[in-house]
Amino acid sequence: MVHAPDGSPIAPKAVVLLSGGLDSTTALAIALSEGYETYAISFNYGQRHLVELRAAERVANTLRAKEHLVVNVDLRSIGASALTANREVPKGRSLDEMSGQIPVTYVPARNTVFLALGLAWAEAIGARHIFIGVNALDYSGYPDCRPQYIEAFARVANLGTKAGVEGRNFEIHTPLINMTKSQIIRKGLELGVDYSLTHSCYDPAADERPCGQCDSCLLREKGFREAGVRDPIVVR
Amino acid sequence: MVHAPDGSPIAPKAVVLLSGGLDSTTALAIALSEGYETYAISFNYGQRHLVELRAAERVANTLRAKEHLVVNVDLRSIGASALTANREVPKGRSLDEMSGQIPVTYVPARNTVFLALGLAWAEAIGARHIFIGVNALDYSGYPDCRPQYIEAFARVANLGTKAGVEGRNFEIHTPLINMTKSQIIRKGLELGVDYSLTHSCYDPAADERPCGQCDSCLLREKGFREAGVRDPIVVR
Repeated sequence: MVHAPDGSPIAPKAVVLLSGGLDSTTALAIALSEGYETYAISFNYGQRHLVELRAAERVANTLRAKEHLVVNVDLRSIGASALTANREVPKGRSLDEMSGQIPVTYVPARNTVFLALGLAWAEAIGARHIFIGVNALDYSGYPDCRPQYIEAFARVANLGTKAGVEGRNFEIHTPLINMTKSQIIRKGLELGVDYSLTHSCYDPAADERPCGQCDSCLLREKGFREAGVRDPIVVR
Repeated sequence: MVHAPDGSPIAPKAVVLLSGGLDSTTALAIALSEGYETYAISFNYGQRHLVELRAAERVANTLRAKEHLVVNVDLRSIGASALTANREVPKGRSLDEMSGQIPVTYVPARNTVFLALGLAWAEAIGARHIFIGVNALDYSGYPDCRPQYIEAFARVANLGTKAGVEGRNFEIHTPLINMTKSQIIRKGLELGVDYSLTHSCYDPAADERPCGQCDSCLLREKGFREAGVRDPIVVR
């Protein structure tokens, strides 16, 4: 813990990647519970489910993030994902189908782009901690959610920044990496997270209601079911 | 070399990070000379010297890049650099002053952000080669221009993408990394590069003329002087 000139502790700053979904919201709550002053960062990247940015804002406000920055980065111009392009989001898939291969909702190098921007902000505000709510266990379809990937990115962060070169090393925190969805939900509820604020659906209706059938909705449903609690968001 | 069904060689695709400056323009010419089909990518990141995007467009057209993509990414919202914020660009510094420390024109994690976006595009278009005109020798002020940083990023690229996981490894090419500015210029001239198309100044006048006094102008001037050729861009 760092201390102010008068001896009182100063909370270390942490940048938290916040999509407004269940995982990143829980990661923010964990960062807060561990005593960090949190700086939430979200991305307007041309996602078709822009409603998640409104969820991120609600979450950042409710969890009293010190700041909430929304960075515009046009991944749509790069293309190649059902989340940004006009491609159909798969519906009603089984867990086997989900974990068997990398889904069409995969956005090329998305976590690398988001971590790079989170790192840039961390360096700009003098934060050395970055939280990301990746999860390698319950949903292994995305390669950029694995521990070895996160370690490799930490090396990039420390070699490629002024702060890193000067010895102020960055730490990438992944508090959810080994948790199941239901463990994440239980942890969040323990910390008082109101999951009605969050948004998970890849393909919401115009009135923001989740579709209930995309991978993200199905994993959320399974998580709440296994945690033995009711999802405060009504699905259909 | 990959071959088409009829046996004719297909040029491998390469994404080339193109700022429109002297280094990235030479990197593009080198990629072309090595037989790649080039995909130039530039960034509208809130830089005060937006004129460089016009230079990038001229260069991409003249060097016949297959495509030229300009990605909007708002690094200005992240702040902390004289290149994006309202901070003064240093003028008239000696080479000792330039190499002694990381300059205020340093944009936090910029190459990491740009490489991440270049990687995303590479994956989207099925390219496995990425060219970046970083240069560790003549101007060591930026940490994200060093070989060990580039190697670390390659590891991130291969661990964090669908292509990498599936064994289609990415290669980050840094043809200029051990060249002096004058060697870069000589190489470019050898390849027929027209440097009058390029733009280097951090703080150009309204009519696009370079200031002649910022680090970038001074390094360019020194490069042409040492190469024994006249810079086709008239300074002042």
